[in-house]
Amino acid sequence: MGESVDELSRLLAQPSVAAQNLGIEECAELVAGALKARGFSVSIMPTGGSPVVFGERKGQGDATLISYNHYDVQPAEPLELWDSPPFEPTLRDGRLYARGVSDNKGNFTARLHAIDAILDREGELPCNVKFIVEGEEEIGSVNLEPFVKANKDLLAGDVCVWEVGGVDHENAPIQMLGLRGICYVELRVRTAIRDVHSGTGGSIFPNAAWRLVWALSTLKDPYENILLPGFYDSVIPPTPREKELLAQLPDMRAHYREVYGLEGFLKGVDDPLELAIQAVYQPTCTICGLNSGYQGEGSKTVLPAEASAKVDFRLVPDQRPQQVLAQLREHLDAHGFSDIEIVYLGGNPGAKTDPDHPAVGLAVRAAEDVYDKPTRINPMIGGSGPNFMFQEYLGVPIISNGANDADSRAHAPNESISLDLYAKAAKHFARILMLMRDY
Amino acid sequence: MGESVDELSRLLAQPSVAAQNLGIEECAELVAGALKARGFSVSIMPTGGSPVVFGERKGQGDATLISYNHYDVQPAEPLELWDSPPFEPTLRDGRLYARGVSDNKGNFTARLHAIDAILDREGELPCNVKFIVEGEEEIGSVNLEPFVKANKDLLAGDVCVWEVGGVDHENAPIQMLGLRGICYVELRVRTAIRDVHSGTGGSIFPNAAWRLVWALSTLKDPYENILLPGFYDSVIPPTPREKELLAQLPDMRAHYREVYGLEGFLKGVDDPLELAIQAVYQPTCTICGLNSGYQGEGSKTVLPAEASAKVDFRLVPDQRPQQVLAQLREHLDAHGFSDIEIVYLGGNPGAKTDPDHPAVGLAVRAAEDVYDKPTRINPMIGGSGPNFMFQEYLGVPIISNGANDADSRAHAPNESISLDLYAKAAKHFARILMLMRDY
Repeated sequence: MGESVDELSRLLAQPSVAAQNLGIEECAELVAGALKARGFSVSIMPTGGSPVVFGERKGQGDATLISYNHYDVQPAEPLELWDSPPFEPTLRDGRLYARGVSDNKGNFTARLHAIDAILDREGELPCNVKFIVEGEEEIGSVNLEPFVKANKDLLAGDVCVWEVGGVDHENAPIQMLGLRGICYVELRVRTAIRDVHSGTGGSIFPNAAWRLVWALSTLKDPYENILLPGFYDSVIPPTPREKELLAQLPDMRAHYREVYGLEGFLKGVDDPLELAIQAVYQPTCTICGLNSGYQGEGSKTVLPAEASAKVDFRLVPDQRPQQVLAQLREHLDAHGFSDIEIVYLGGNPGAKTDPDHPAVGLAVRAAEDVYDKPTRINPMIGGSGPNFMFQEYLGVPIISNGANDADSRAHAPNESISLDLYAKAAKHFARILMLMRDY
Repeated sequence: MGESVDELSRLLAQPSVAAQNLGIEECAELVAGALKARGFSVSIMPTGGSPVVFGERKGQGDATLISYNHYDVQPAEPLELWDSPPFEPTLRDGRLYARGVSDNKGNFTARLHAIDAILDREGELPCNVKFIVEGEEEIGSVNLEPFVKANKDLLAGDVCVWEVGGVDHENAPIQMLGLRGICYVELRVRTAIRDVHSGTGGSIFPNAAWRLVWALSTLKDPYENILLPGFYDSVIPPTPREKELLAQLPDMRAHYREVYGLEGFLKGVDDPLELAIQAVYQPTCTICGLNSGYQGEGSKTVLPAEASAKVDFRLVPDQRPQQVLAQLREHLDAHGFSDIEIVYLGGNPGAKTDPDHPAVGLAVRAAEDVYDKPTRINPMIGGSGPNFMFQEYLGVPIISNGANDADSRAHAPNESISLDLYAKAAKHFARILMLMRDY
């Protein structure tokens, strides 16, 4: 496994932050090289944004497994909260730390490691394997939909293994079957061409920070009701089967309380099943960032001319990002905030795979003997990704799993994976491939 | 004048940002040295914060003139908007650019230049002169009040010339007689011990940015009504004499529209006198800064655990900062925001000098022949400073003037003064000193 971890470390040392357009081309080349080294025929395909690395290798059976991964990572900021530099992979106590190690570079190289093991032993793959490795997942896969639509035949397959997953905080492996959608926007307002002394302007000049605060405060009330017109109209509740699966998932309350120092949860919910349902079957409106005026030490008496907020709506089936954008514009205009500009930074609808699909059973069987505990099935998670377009254009069932655990801290400082789980994730993927021979 | 500008440039090259505790001691030494060079007996006096530089020199007459100045400056950020580095004084088209050149280092050295001229010609000063040069004006003079109170006899005098002023945008010299008070706070909230992925937490975790936005939105409504309990109770309107003086001030509307790119003014006010009254006789609640979560390029799907806002209340007589702090705490608690911490960053009550005081007449007479236009009297300006404690403990009339003009951009990037006005301000101060001989 040492060689595989070395390969992963090289990939991690290459920053690839799509939001900052940092190291994207270089990282795509590394990914392409890794696939070529396993005998895949590889293309670096343009999309208008970050390229998609596509690799294909024929196997014994007729069935085709698609692995969807991404080589871009979240921004590493705030840098001062990292114990070791985010792009210098560091091993401590059996865990490898670096930005992107859990989301998603580690899962990608664990799958390559599985392929190496099979090729070593068998000389060929048990099924056809296609890798679709994109470079804009962390910014909402903004250019992927036309790419998938235009390359339906090239990308086609029977089962898709999604980028991310692992074990829950009780160390039980999880197969995840759905993702929420997302609509990510930046709200911007400018009230003057320059800042002014707050003593001069405070009583008579418009203030961008106030305009932003007032506009935001109309979007969601302190009881967590999102106030866009028609926002909840197309929200559908979980099915009975989904509720049954959610009830088998572990109680997350104590874990969240401890890791995040929470006193309680929104809306005062405290029943584990209710919490699990609220966590993913309700859409959100999250302020991810606020920016205006002076933010340094002490005081500066300035009236800011500009203000902005990053706002992320998580969507449940059947909400659509374009719908939300239209509702947002309508809402802001109706409340007197036509001066607030909406910049769309990306989005996808949500989608989920039927828990009774045979491909789900295959992934569950493949996990037997690899992990110490029985596999759990999570019908939908809170995060997002472009699974909607794979279901829409390729018609494949999608199962998501990987090498992550409850300490992985995806999107946060000190992101990491356990090397023990890395080996297990590789083994699980190898077994999925072997079972695909007869799919 | 070249030597005086050289001296000013050396002072400007020494950063002295009280908010960032940057260069304070070094700048105090420079100020002390400049006063000693003019034969002043000088003490660098501790206050618990930045020291006060006190200098005194006896003159012919019995009367004592106090010059109040400050050697600290506003933070220079945002640095990218400066055409030349803020702490590298640069001369362009007859203007000197640097942080602090208009507020307040230029006014300080202009007064030294006046003293040099008198000493050259007369060999002694016409009256006693005391310089009180503090180092925390830009952070609300947080340690000055106990200092003034404890040193009443040392600091005593007959007339105080305040730190700042100059000509208005029609190039008429202004004598300013009052300042609003200020209460500057930082509002902080923390909802968890670390940030979380917005997909995981959006529906169930509290969000610090939302808490802050909701709390702020209760402080002031979009019609500019400040909603703290009792906030307007002690506000007193302008006197008839003040209104008369305000009516003689120039119409600022076109100037503000052009320089700041404004379409109109708050509350739709468009009458020049009404605007002048609203600008300074109403208290404010200004958001000076907002800070939470991700503020970089593109999107980051994070739910922030921390958020903060800088908020500046400008106060009119007879409001008091401690009163406002109590009202703010009471208001936040009553609206369910006990989780919002209030950090007091400094403040003063407002104060004003009677426009019919003989000292005002003296300053007006001294300006005759120096400036091309007759002097105007501004009974109160929108800015703040510690004039209240000088009136309270020293009982002096206070007149504020200096070398600034409408292009000076105090507190903003590209702060500057005109060297022509610098010479005029020095001349005006010299004439004030000469008239003080018979005061």
